Amino acid sequence: MKGHVVAEISVVPLGTGSTSLSQYVAACMQVLDGRKDVSYQLTPMSTVIEGPLDKVLEVTRLLHEVPFAEGAFRVLTTLKIDDRRDKPVTMAGKVGSVVKRYPATRTAKKS
Amino acid sequence: MKGHVVAEISVVPLGTGSTSLSQYVAACMQVLDGRKDVSYQLTPMSTVIEGPLDKVLEVTRLLHEVPFAEGAFRVLTTLKIDDRRDKPVTMAGKVGSVVKRYPATRTAKKS
Amino acid sequence: MKGHVVAEISVVPLGTGSTSLSQYVAACMQVLDGRKDVSYQLTPMSTVIEGPLDKVLEVTRLLHEVPFAEGAFRVLTTLKIDDRRDKPVTMAGKVGSVVKRYPATRTAKKS
Amino acid sequence: MKGHVVAEISVVPLGTGSTSLSQYVAACMQVLDGRKDVSYQLTPMSTVIEGPLDKVLEVTRLLHEVPFAEGAFRVLTTLKIDDRRDKPVTMAGKVGSVVKRYPATRTAKKS
Repeated sequence: MKGHVVAEISVVPLGTGSTSLSQYVAACMQVLDGRKDVSYQLTPMSTVIEGPLDKVLEVTRLLHEVPFAEGAFRVLTTLKIDDRRDKPVTMAGKVGSVVKRYPATRTAKKS
Repeated sequence: MKGHVVAEISVVPLGTGSTSLSQYVAACMQVLDGRKDVSYQLTPMSTVIEGPLDKVLEVTRLLHEVPFAEGAFRVLTTLKIDDRRDKPVTMAGKVGSVVKRYPATRTAKKS
Repeated sequence: MKGHVVAEISVVPLGTGSTSLSQYVAACMQVLDGRKDVSYQLTPMSTVIEGPLDKVLEVTRLLHEVPFAEGAFRVLTTLKIDDRRDKPVTMAGKVGSVVKRYPATRTAKKS
Repeated sequence: MKGHVVAEISVVPLGTGSTSLSQYVAACMQVLDGRKDVSYQLTPMSTVIEGPLDKVLEVTRLLHEVPFAEGAFRVLTTLKIDDRRDKPVTMAGKVGSVVKRYPATRTAKKS
């Protein structure tokens, strides 16, 4: 599918006074959980998102606002987009093609 | 633990002539699987690693060489280190603290 | 200014068969040069962009398409957004505040 | 040169209570300025470093400690390494090859 991508996003508030980030990440999860147009999966370092590119950018815009809504005054957002147009790319497919080659791979599966 | 970190690494060959990366990622998994000093977890966009900072840097150095050993001539390696020294940080702990706040979170668990 | 951000973008084609990227970066520069709504500055590792957040996302979307238009079939795009809302943030201001503290800093200036 | 790379590094403290980062960046510049084995250039979003890969990793390790030494308890460090082994890669060369193709490019030059 043209424009269907897998992406990785991280949204981090700076200068909040607390080293904990879980409050902000949990609020982002709530936003993602309400979307029907993108899939997601939380990893220990970021959130992987899958869906149409325009929706991924729309969701990135929303997630970027989350820490501001929670009181932060500076936010660093990182987005990495993997867009492949010679064949479909999905979260499961990307991991699966590695496991097929090296079955002992420790993977991250959706709970 | 001072110096025990969670990190995210991505190693990508450029100019290989094939859009597929799974060969290179699988070779990286083999390197990681042989290490007793770091834990890892493959995600659809990168590999999360946990262990002593010096070991994480050592492993990064090794993984960076993998695509060259497989015939590539240019490699882009990205490493993101999350180092917290006021309390222990682990892959499971980071995800768990988000799930505790928002239980509907779709997570990536080790298989 | 709310929504005025400094960002960093990198757009990389995979599987092109050539280790050189300058053709793709030059085509991105041409897109940026035609915009009146964002400023930019090429660095050796990425392109720094400054402007309204919505324009930065719009430009990211355009730059992401550049390697596909040049014949690539897989593209990795990385965007990092620094958004500060307690005071204005600019490319010149960010570098200037470091130089003020440490004048020997070797900086990147617009040509 | 095998092992001579161009890299990009960003070191960010979390939970400091202040949205300003210039104190930490300036302290990093001081570390870089004292090294004879790597070149560097501050950009508005990160610091570009050039030198032997092992020295770049050594310097990354040092810069990562800077915010802790300044009182921070959590640090996010991002390192991106561009390693090309079919021909030499330098900061000036990378930008120069783009400017050669598109002379109107606005570049970041060392001051």
